[in-house]
Amino acid sequence: MNRREFNFSLCTATAGVALHRTLAGTSSAETLRINGARLNQHLKELSEFGKNPQGGVSRVAYSEADRQGREYVVKLMRDAKLNVSIDAAGNIIGRRRESSETKLRPILIGSHVDSVPEGGNYDGDVGSLGAIEVAQTLAENNIYTQHPLEVVIFQNEEGGLIGSEALIGALGEKELEHVSNSGKTIRDGINFIGGDVSKLTSVRREKGSIAAYLELHIEQGGTLEAEHIDIGVVEGIVGITQWNVTIEGFANHAGTTAMNNRRDALLAAAKFIEVVNRVVTSVPGRQVGTVGKIQAFPGAPNVIPGKVILTLELRDLDAAKIQMLYQKIRAEADQIAQANKVTFDFQLLNTNIPAPTDPRIRALIDQSAKELELTTKQMPSGAGHDAQDMARLAPVGMIFIPSIGGISHSPKEFSRPQDIENGANVLLGTLMKLDRN
Amino acid sequence: MNRREFNFSLCTATAGVALHRTLAGTSSAETLRINGARLNQHLKELSEFGKNPQGGVSRVAYSEADRQGREYVVKLMRDAKLNVSIDAAGNIIGRRRESSETKLRPILIGSHVDSVPEGGNYDGDVGSLGAIEVAQTLAENNIYTQHPLEVVIFQNEEGGLIGSEALIGALGEKELEHVSNSGKTIRDGINFIGGDVSKLTSVRREKGSIAAYLELHIEQGGTLEAEHIDIGVVEGIVGITQWNVTIEGFANHAGTTAMNNRRDALLAAAKFIEVVNRVVTSVPGRQVGTVGKIQAFPGAPNVIPGKVILTLELRDLDAAKIQMLYQKIRAEADQIAQANKVTFDFQLLNTNIPAPTDPRIRALIDQSAKELELTTKQMPSGAGHDAQDMARLAPVGMIFIPSIGGISHSPKEFSRPQDIENGANVLLGTLMKLDRN
Repeated sequence: MNRREFNFSLCTATAGVALHRTLAGTSSAETLRINGARLNQHLKELSEFGKNPQGGVSRVAYSEADRQGREYVVKLMRDAKLNVSIDAAGNIIGRRRESSETKLRPILIGSHVDSVPEGGNYDGDVGSLGAIEVAQTLAENNIYTQHPLEVVIFQNEEGGLIGSEALIGALGEKELEHVSNSGKTIRDGINFIGGDVSKLTSVRREKGSIAAYLELHIEQGGTLEAEHIDIGVVEGIVGITQWNVTIEGFANHAGTTAMNNRRDALLAAAKFIEVVNRVVTSVPGRQVGTVGKIQAFPGAPNVIPGKVILTLELRDLDAAKIQMLYQKIRAEADQIAQANKVTFDFQLLNTNIPAPTDPRIRALIDQSAKELELTTKQMPSGAGHDAQDMARLAPVGMIFIPSIGGISHSPKEFSRPQDIENGANVLLGTLMKLDRN
Repeated sequence: MNRREFNFSLCTATAGVALHRTLAGTSSAETLRINGARLNQHLKELSEFGKNPQGGVSRVAYSEADRQGREYVVKLMRDAKLNVSIDAAGNIIGRRRESSETKLRPILIGSHVDSVPEGGNYDGDVGSLGAIEVAQTLAENNIYTQHPLEVVIFQNEEGGLIGSEALIGALGEKELEHVSNSGKTIRDGINFIGGDVSKLTSVRREKGSIAAYLELHIEQGGTLEAEHIDIGVVEGIVGITQWNVTIEGFANHAGTTAMNNRRDALLAAAKFIEVVNRVVTSVPGRQVGTVGKIQAFPGAPNVIPGKVILTLELRDLDAAKIQMLYQKIRAEADQIAQANKVTFDFQLLNTNIPAPTDPRIRALIDQSAKELELTTKQMPSGAGHDAQDMARLAPVGMIFIPSIGGISHSPKEFSRPQDIENGANVLLGTLMKLDRN
C-alpha cells in the first residue's frame, strides 16, 4: 500500500465524522456483537499465507509469506475503515478516526500475525483479526469510541516481541543485528516489511501516553478446555528466568570404575531434574519449572559422563517466588554436589520480569464475559506476549480463549469458531466499558 | 619387513636349537627375571609414535602413527629373537623357535599397541612390550619353553577387538566395511598394515589348538592402587550388554503447560537414571550400570522435552545377573511410564558374553606373584580385552597392575615403572609354570 492510498482512506474517514454518534445515552454498546462467521472466514483466508503442505503455517517474520499475510491484514483494516500506516519498526497501525472534540489518550487493541516455523493458525491471528473485526463492527454501526482507537499488529512477536520492544525503546543495535528465523537480520527484516530502521526512535511511546492496551489470544495451555471455561481473564504475563547449569564430575571408563568410585555428572543431573520438579510443585500456585535442554559429555554408552550442561527455566507472576524457588533448588543442588562429588555452576541466561495486568481491566473483562453468559477463570499467561512490553507503558488486559488439547506452536493448534467469536465479543465489550470508564 | 628378512631370522633361530636347554632339572625358572629398566625404556620409545602435544598418544589403528609404532614393535621382536610375521588379519606374530621334539600346542602371550584417540601410554603397550620382554629374557638366557611360544600383538583392539575377532572367525563382511577412527574401513586398514583381507580365513584358529593365552594389562580402574595391591588376578572379562532406551512423552510449551499436565520425557529419564543406579547398587557384587549418552528433543530451554533417547549399559561376570538387573530396571521403568504418562522402548544394541578366565591359570598367577613377594587380589576385568575372544579357543589368564587414580583412555593414564616390572615378572613366572604344568 502506498502513501496516496493512506491519504485516500484518511479522506473517507474524515467524511464519516459527520455521521458519528457517541455511545453515551444509547444502549447499543450492550447489544453490539461482532460477526463471528466473518471473523472465522478471515482467519481461514489468512491461513493461506505460508500454509504448510502438512497443515498449519510457517509465516515467520520477514519471510515472503509474512509480507503477503501483512498485505492481507492491511486490506482487512482498510475494509474496517481504519487509517493504516506502517510505523518505523514495521508494526501495522490502524487508527479509527477519533472524535475531534476529545483530548483523551488512545486505547490500543491488537496482537501479531507472524508465526513460529511450522506453527498454527490461531496464536496471534485470533487477536489480530479479532481486533480488526471489533473495528469493523464499530465502523458498520458508525460508532466512535470516546478514546481514539488504534489497532496494532505487532511485527515479529515470535522472534522476541520485536515490534513492541520498539514501542518501549528496547530495540537496540545488538537486537537489530540478530538473525531471525527468516534468515534476515532484524534490521533487514524491518526494512523488508516497510519499516525504516533509521527512524526507530519515532516509534517510541511515552509511559502514560496510552490509556490502555487490550489483547485477545488463545490460551496455549489446556486449562480452559479441561475445565470447560469460556474465557480466561489473564492476571499477568509471568516472569521468566533461565539459567545454564553446568555439572562437572569426572569422565571415566564405565567398565572399570566401581559404582562407589564414580563422579557421574549425569546421575547428579538426574537428581537435579527431579529436585526442580519437586521444589516447583512443593508450594501452592501455578509456577512452572522446566529442564528442556541437556547435553552429557563425552556422550558414549561406555563412558561415565564427566560433564553435563542443562537449562533451568522458572516462570511465575511473582518475581520473588521465582527467586525463592531458585534458592531452594540451589540449596538442594549443593547437597547433590556434595553427595556425588560433583560441582554445580549456575549461569543466568535470561530474565523477563513479570508483567501484571490491570485489576480494573480484569474486572471489566470478567463483567463483559458474564454479560455474554460466558464462564471465566482468572489465570496467568505462562507464555510471553507483546502485552508484557505494553504493561510498561499503560494498564493492560488480556483475554484468553480455549486451545484444544493445550497444543500450541504446532500445526495441531486449534480453537473452536464459537470460542473465537466469544473472545472477540468480550474484546469488544471490554473496549466499550473501558472507553466509558 | 619383507619375506627375505623373515627367512633370515628363521635361519638364525634354527641355529640356536643346538644351544637350547630345557628347564626341567634347573632352578633358573624361579630366579629368572625380566629387565625392568629395558622394558620401561621400550615403553618410553614406543610413546613417541603418535605422541600428542598435550601428552599421551593418538595411535589409532591403521593411522600412520600405528604403522610406525608397529614397525618399532617388530624391531623389538626381532631383537628378542622372535620369528616375526604379519598374519592376514594384520596381527603381528612373533614365534620363538620351538623345540623340534615337541608336539605340544603353543602358548600365546601378548596384547595390543593401538590406542584410543587421545589415549595414554600404558593400555595395551604394557602387555605388548611386557610379552616381548619375556621373550627377550628367554632368548638372553637361551631358554626354550617346552610349548612353542607365540608373542601376539593384536591389531585394532580399541576399535572392537578386531585382530582377535579374526582368530575366532568372527570378522565378517559387515565388520570389514565399518569405518574406524583412522577414517579407513577395517578392510582398508588391514591391508594398510600389511594384512591381506582376501586370506582372512587362514588366520582362524581351532578351538583347542592353543594351550593357553596370557595377557598382562593395566587395571584401568582404581581398585589395586586404592587398596595398595601389586597384582590383580583377573577372574574373567565381564559381559557387556547395551540398550538404546527411547522415552516418549509429549513436547509442549514450558510456560503454558501446568506441572500436573505434563508428559515430560526428561523428567521420566531422570527417574530412570536414578533407578539404574539404585538397582545396580542394591545387590552385592561388582556389577556396574551406566547411562553414558542422552539426547532430549526438541531440546530448547522453553519446551518440555517430548522425547529422550539414552543408553543403558550393564556389565558383570555373570550373564544371569545382567539379565536379573535388566528385568528389575524394566519393571521400574514400567512404573515410571505409568506415573509420568510416558512410554519406554528398549532396543538391544550390543551384547558381549562374559569370558571367565581359567581357574588353574589364576592359581599359577597368584603363586608366581607370591613367589615375588607381591600382594594379589582376585578381580573382574570391567573392560573388554582380546583375552575374551581367546577364551573361546583356549584357557586364558590375565594379570593386572595398578593404574594410578584408575585413569585410563586418557593422556593422564599412568602405571609406575616398578608395577610394570612386577607385572612382566609375573607374566614370565606364570608362563614358566604353565609350560611345565
